Amino acid sequence: MSQEKSEELAGKILGMMFFEPSTRTRLSFETAMKRLGGNCIGFAGSAASSVSKGENLADTSKMFEAYSDAIVIRHDLEGVGRFISDIVDVPVINAGDGAGQHPTQTLLDLYTIKREFNKIKGLNVALVGDLKYGRTVHSLAYALGMFGTEMTFVAPDDLKMPNEILHDLKKNNIKFNETSNIKDVIDDIDVLYVTRIQKERFPDVEEYSKIKGAYLINYDLIKGKDLIVMHPLPRIDEIAHDIDNTKYNKYFEQAFYGVPIRMAILKNIIKNKM
Amino acid sequence: MSQEKSEELAGKILGMMFFEPSTRTRLSFETAMKRLGGNCIGFAGSAASSVSKGENLADTSKMFEAYSDAIVIRHDLEGVGRFISDIVDVPVINAGDGAGQHPTQTLLDLYTIKREFNKIKGLNVALVGDLKYGRTVHSLAYALGMFGTEMTFVAPDDLKMPNEILHDLKKNNIKFNETSNIKDVIDDIDVLYVTRIQKERFPDVEEYSKIKGAYLINYDLIKGKDLIVMHPLPRIDEIAHDIDNTKYNKYFEQAFYGVPIRMAILKNIIKNKM
Amino acid sequence: MSQEKSEELAGKILGMMFFEPSTRTRLSFETAMKRLGGNCIGFAGSAASSVSKGENLADTSKMFEAYSDAIVIRHDLEGVGRFISDIVDVPVINAGDGAGQHPTQTLLDLYTIKREFNKIKGLNVALVGDLKYGRTVHSLAYALGMFGTEMTFVAPDDLKMPNEILHDLKKNNIKFNETSNIKDVIDDIDVLYVTRIQKERFPDVEEYSKIKGAYLINYDLIKGKDLIVMHPLPRIDEIAHDIDNTKYNKYFEQAFYGVPIRMAILKNIIKNKM
Repeated sequence: MSQEKSEELAGKILGMMFFEPSTRTRLSFETAMKRLGGNCIGFAGSAASSVSKGENLADTSKMFEAYSDAIVIRHDLEGVGRFISDIVDVPVINAGDGAGQHPTQTLLDLYTIKREFNKIKGLNVALVGDLKYGRTVHSLAYALGMFGTEMTFVAPDDLKMPNEILHDLKKNNIKFNETSNIKDVIDDIDVLYVTRIQKERFPDVEEYSKIKGAYLINYDLIKGKDLIVMHPLPRIDEIAHDIDNTKYNKYFEQAFYGVPIRMAILKNIIKNKM
Repeated sequence: MSQEKSEELAGKILGMMFFEPSTRTRLSFETAMKRLGGNCIGFAGSAASSVSKGENLADTSKMFEAYSDAIVIRHDLEGVGRFISDIVDVPVINAGDGAGQHPTQTLLDLYTIKREFNKIKGLNVALVGDLKYGRTVHSLAYALGMFGTEMTFVAPDDLKMPNEILHDLKKNNIKFNETSNIKDVIDDIDVLYVTRIQKERFPDVEEYSKIKGAYLINYDLIKGKDLIVMHPLPRIDEIAHDIDNTKYNKYFEQAFYGVPIRMAILKNIIKNKM
Repeated sequence: MSQEKSEELAGKILGMMFFEPSTRTRLSFETAMKRLGGNCIGFAGSAASSVSKGENLADTSKMFEAYSDAIVIRHDLEGVGRFISDIVDVPVINAGDGAGQHPTQTLLDLYTIKREFNKIKGLNVALVGDLKYGRTVHSLAYALGMFGTEMTFVAPDDLKMPNEILHDLKKNNIKFNETSNIKDVIDDIDVLYVTRIQKERFPDVEEYSKIKGAYLINYDLIKGKDLIVMHPLPRIDEIAHDIDNTKYNKYFEQAFYGVPIRMAILKNIIKNKM
């Protein structure tokens, strides 16, 4: 860490409404706010909040509006960020809405890629794993498309990128390929963006077990290739630990960038509001 | 929000002992402390604390005394604030003690009324709903009585204002009326103060279901009247959403005042202590 | 409290990884950090964190490294502090590792003794209670040994000080006595250091019940003696409340010293790092 002391958001409050488990996103937002001299209120999990007394989401949001200069929300309801932002007058940040989007993750993903290659356009990126329920790859696909990246979606049949996203991409003349076999792309890509097969997205545990082993990335697979491995984390076993101490590993750096990227976001939206 | 940056309580610590669920009270105290440049420690729910190891309340309080400049406590034990304040040498704030009192809520209630009418004396206030278990209306009844407000207590028979409170009011020559029918008072009041029928106060779920529908406040009921609607929140369904966007709704404003009122309280008790 | 406002750690972040319940240790670290102008992130209990999604400890630690200037960890795994410190490049503080060690507790214990007697060397200290699973007495025994204190270990047969610790002490020519009867030592000691019989360390509830009553310290036992009573807290019933308001009670003071001692630790390790 080499952050200078900052007081730019001193006295400012970030409201954290985390209805779903989160460590990385929640803690990097908190760190970002506190590094800027601000502070946070809120809850992680709804057990200790008024939600356990039966309060609806709109009323809870009005309360956070009353107490905060900006709101960060994670919820299993798709579209929750937009829903809340129609109700409150403070800026709302979507920190993950079910199987929907995760836009601040995308900003730090783009930043990681830019730092590594000094460009985004023209790169060859494979998004791998759970593309159906993975909100990080949904947001990232739209963003990379806008930058003119070549994309390949690598997923088992049951976890392919949703049709509505494919439709949006086509409508905007964004090119992409699809395959279920990593080996089809492994020689040609600059970025291997791996995602967790999210257990909590599966109604059926057996289905989960069957799939999760199929997309294991290990050193043998990528040895000698000219690529980097990214992952929004947490990982379970989709990236083997034999990659951790190699040049391929960019996922820890990527997590680190969560703080400066979210500092930039918070500084921008909270300062602009005054 | 237009709060100026303040450092008046910089380096000061507010100890938060929240044994019962709370969002509004807890978060507005935290916001107040942090807006003043101070910070908070504590727990919400006792699962992650030493209480889960069997520590008694007195010892836990001594610890908070050792670490904090003031203590805020919510607990299901009536009188807990007074009990703690005999044990510790730092100021103690009762943030709700079972079916007892909720004095800081009353201060923000009074402030809301004062802002609206520029007076408290002589107004006509109806306290409605669960007057038996509702700690906010217990504290408010004493306070309004001291200001010379005309009060009507509107509750079903099983949830009437407790006799000891009625007794106290009479002893102090404070006048009040009682009824079980909102329509008896709806034409004559300035403030309709509604409370939640608190599920967690009922041993019997059926009893709860029967009562909760009986005191629904909706737009049809108050249309054309010259009154405001207040509520300590959270509400479940005792105030219909068709009131939310009307001039009658003062409950969101009321929640907002939680922060400045608690800033005033904290500044006063913590500064005075030094 | 008479702490001056301090900004020495402004903008700095302490990462709190508390996998086990804790109030005193966790809150005194938080208080220490906040009194120095810094702030904290983290979790207490792992339910709301990525650990609940299956993330391993090494990855979670890398995340805390990315966001924090120092890490405090409590975990039921012995040696967890050393394990983590091999993985991350920020300072790591062991805040209790299973039945292992609790070094920052020892620093405040030593400070309490020093404040009371103006020396540590040559004193007669009895460590009483659960010496097998009690991590505070493990750390304290090593430390007192280095200061040349006379130690007696007082424990029931099933809860004696572990052999590897006795072995270490002997190897370093540190003298100690062992007994299972408090009365053997009660007339000759300066410090009676009592520990909780930790319920959560016992696989068997009956075993726990049998032992816990055997080492009760009450006023009758110590009346007229020239000693102080210490305890890392929380206590259940191993120290009777009739001692609380006597001169013998140093355990509340001891808890209070947790803040200044941890302020010193944090200031030292975080400042030195820059």
